[in-house]
Amino acid sequence: MDTIEQLRWRYATKKFDKNKKLSKLKIDTLKEAFNLTAMSFGLQPISMVVVSNNKLKESLVPYAYNQKQVSDASHLLVICIQSDVNEEDVNKHFDNVKMIRNTPETILEPYRKNLIKTIQKMSVEERKIWSINQAYIALGNLMTVCAFEEIDSCPMEGFISEKYDEILNLRGMGLKSVLLLPVGYRAEDDMFASFKKVRKSLDKTIIELN
Amino acid sequence: MDTIEQLRWRYATKKFDKNKKLSKLKIDTLKEAFNLTAMSFGLQPISMVVVSNNKLKESLVPYAYNQKQVSDASHLLVICIQSDVNEEDVNKHFDNVKMIRNTPETILEPYRKNLIKTIQKMSVEERKIWSINQAYIALGNLMTVCAFEEIDSCPMEGFISEKYDEILNLRGMGLKSVLLLPVGYRAEDDMFASFKKVRKSLDKTIIELN
Repeated sequence: MDTIEQLRWRYATKKFDKNKKLSKLKIDTLKEAFNLTAMSFGLQPISMVVVSNNKLKESLVPYAYNQKQVSDASHLLVICIQSDVNEEDVNKHFDNVKMIRNTPETILEPYRKNLIKTIQKMSVEERKIWSINQAYIALGNLMTVCAFEEIDSCPMEGFISEKYDEILNLRGMGLKSVLLLPVGYRAEDDMFASFKKVRKSLDKTIIELN
Repeated sequence: MDTIEQLRWRYATKKFDKNKKLSKLKIDTLKEAFNLTAMSFGLQPISMVVVSNNKLKESLVPYAYNQKQVSDASHLLVICIQSDVNEEDVNKHFDNVKMIRNTPETILEPYRKNLIKTIQKMSVEERKIWSINQAYIALGNLMTVCAFEEIDSCPMEGFISEKYDEILNLRGMGLKSVLLLPVGYRAEDDMFASFKKVRKSLDKTIIELN
């Protein structure tokens, strides 16, 4: 498989084939890939909602500026941040490190204390921006994984997140939606699939210092 | 190649092998992959500096909290945002669409006007946050591409960007550094390579609505 060929194959899918569904294996790969996304401090302040229910997907369309990909795609991925990140999250993370790696607390303690201090020094707004940044890393990871798995996707930043939070009951789970990624298979007549990719030339985006 | 296996293979490399350099082919893949990153509105408000010069890399170490990966890695990738995004950038983008896809101006004009309005409605700070978000998408894309290409990498958010901007003369190019990604090959004695991956269990990060 050629990496660049796969990245050229992907495009922001404008029309999905409603009848083609992703297999359980493909969905499991996306779930696992999301969870493996590299995160700063390893904290994972994000979650992903995987919506396959058709009625639910349809009810969300009006709040993504009527973009039909939300309902036509096989699955709608909703990347969410936690409503906030606190000392308890840091402690849970280090407890997890201790359990998985069998690392003694004496080694972990300074890191644990340091990270709690770092988190507490940030304002609520700073923690929110930091969490959103991590959601964007996950989006970048997922789009590339989709390209490799030959899954079509369409990233969306513009939607009424408050309505998504309400309809999907996210607030009750301590979550807030920040990004959408409908995934599935392109419709045969999506004319955007054959459009040439538009990118700046490499000499405009890359600077080499040798 | 198994996607999940490759994502499990990657880790935030703590020690690079100073003597192992990435081939031109690998670097070309990373440059092209960066440029192919999906961007909202297709605007590409980001650039990437590829530093291979050893003295330059060494001079940057102190401003990334002395993390030696900055100098030991084969190449240091510095993801930058433009100092601002304006009407001219939108026009250049649509001129590029016109040239590459041969789309008539009558079709492009409403999109062009609309995007200029969108950009102008945002504050300088909002445009900056939006650009930084795009930089994070590129980071997510690059880390995953590295995993597939068996290139080691270490994402870094914490560094003194003002010093990087100064040393790399970024201001003169209208750029501002936001993220670092040293890339190369892990040292044989990097003990972190064999550590078990720590992630929350899937039932804590994934919510399925069927």
